[in-house]
Amino acid sequence: MRVGVILSGCGFQDGAEIHESVLTLLALSRAGAEAVCFAPDIDQAKVVNHLTGDETGETRNVLQESARIARGAIQDVASANAEELDALILPGGFGAALNLSNFAVAGPDSDVDAGVAALVRAMHAAKKPIGAICIAPAVIARVLGDDGAPTLTIGNDEGTAGALEACGATHESCPVDAFVVDLDARIVSTPAYKLGPEIKDVAAGIERCVAEVLTLAQPATAGA
Amino acid sequence: MRVGVILSGCGFQDGAEIHESVLTLLALSRAGAEAVCFAPDIDQAKVVNHLTGDETGETRNVLQESARIARGAIQDVASANAEELDALILPGGFGAALNLSNFAVAGPDSDVDAGVAALVRAMHAAKKPIGAICIAPAVIARVLGDDGAPTLTIGNDEGTAGALEACGATHESCPVDAFVVDLDARIVSTPAYKLGPEIKDVAAGIERCVAEVLTLAQPATAGA
Repeated sequence: MRVGVILSGCGFQDGAEIHESVLTLLALSRAGAEAVCFAPDIDQAKVVNHLTGDETGETRNVLQESARIARGAIQDVASANAEELDALILPGGFGAALNLSNFAVAGPDSDVDAGVAALVRAMHAAKKPIGAICIAPAVIARVLGDDGAPTLTIGNDEGTAGALEACGATHESCPVDAFVVDLDARIVSTPAYKLGPEIKDVAAGIERCVAEVLTLAQPATAGA
Repeated sequence: MRVGVILSGCGFQDGAEIHESVLTLLALSRAGAEAVCFAPDIDQAKVVNHLTGDETGETRNVLQESARIARGAIQDVASANAEELDALILPGGFGAALNLSNFAVAGPDSDVDAGVAALVRAMHAAKKPIGAICIAPAVIARVLGDDGAPTLTIGNDEGTAGALEACGATHESCPVDAFVVDLDARIVSTPAYKLGPEIKDVAAGIERCVAEVLTLAQPATAGA
């Protein structure tokens, strides 16, 4: 089983949420699946000092920073081929709403990075499962919202849930240690650090989300 | 139980190994322990593009970059108070040998950051357990090597093991899913990505290393 993982930088305030990304890689490794990491080869929307929360004015590249989490084993998402993947997972962090898309700024009018959108559309068209963690369901809602209104969760944040629904998705509240699955759309989501609070709580939901994605990626057995 | 975790940046080539750091935080959270993250407030020795392995010439601060892994909850190690901690853990990554010390450059003649050295010495003097992951035993060997020759592992890399022993430590080979414990010195070490190869293998060793550190941090029960 080969599972694409789209990262969006390295750090929850301007990139991929590091714990969510590592917990995704851990769950895939423990399940015997191969993670194939991708990120867009673009500049980050901003760089944030994670000690103070202030912008630094630096320029950093999303693919290079994501490579820190992937230990160098990562490719430009524009070169991804859905035919070589059995499933796709998007960890969260503001990077999903700042770099993979501009949902943090434009909400229901947001644009999604062309390479990310193309991969999500190709996986969905091939009926391969997609997992989306924390705020990453906003990317899925914007890409697929016009095509079947997927049911997603971002936890219980009414403001963000409203923006998701304005993208054409249906929002369902969900506790941190669980997931929401849309069996028709084959999309699995879990709130992670949209709720937290502790890494052990986030880990419980991500483990279940990844397991469900892998279950949906299995070819149906004879007689099932 | 409050456990200090000393980070050394954010990315294995110039800072803390991200997976090892997150797996340490996960194991502590699952055990009901509180992680208290620290890092030195100094510039990194270098900044490496993790996609290419080349130095970028940028300047980054170890405390600010470590804050990415700690989600902002981190303090200058120079302000750490051993009396407020029950144990201490140092994840690996080249940052341990570039920023916490300069072991990567100077080997047995390396210097250790003053704040890191003071905290390690104070914990050791108070007979509180210390965990060291991957290359981080080099920091422990350099600080404590003159004071009782602790037994440590960095896996089975003969060159690094020789440099560790030149610091006054005794090296013991160890598989990735296990740990070495020096019960007199109360020091636990595990090779992690010195061996790898997969995150699931590294996680197995770190979980056991953290559990042993927490066991040693428990006050002895009556009659034990």
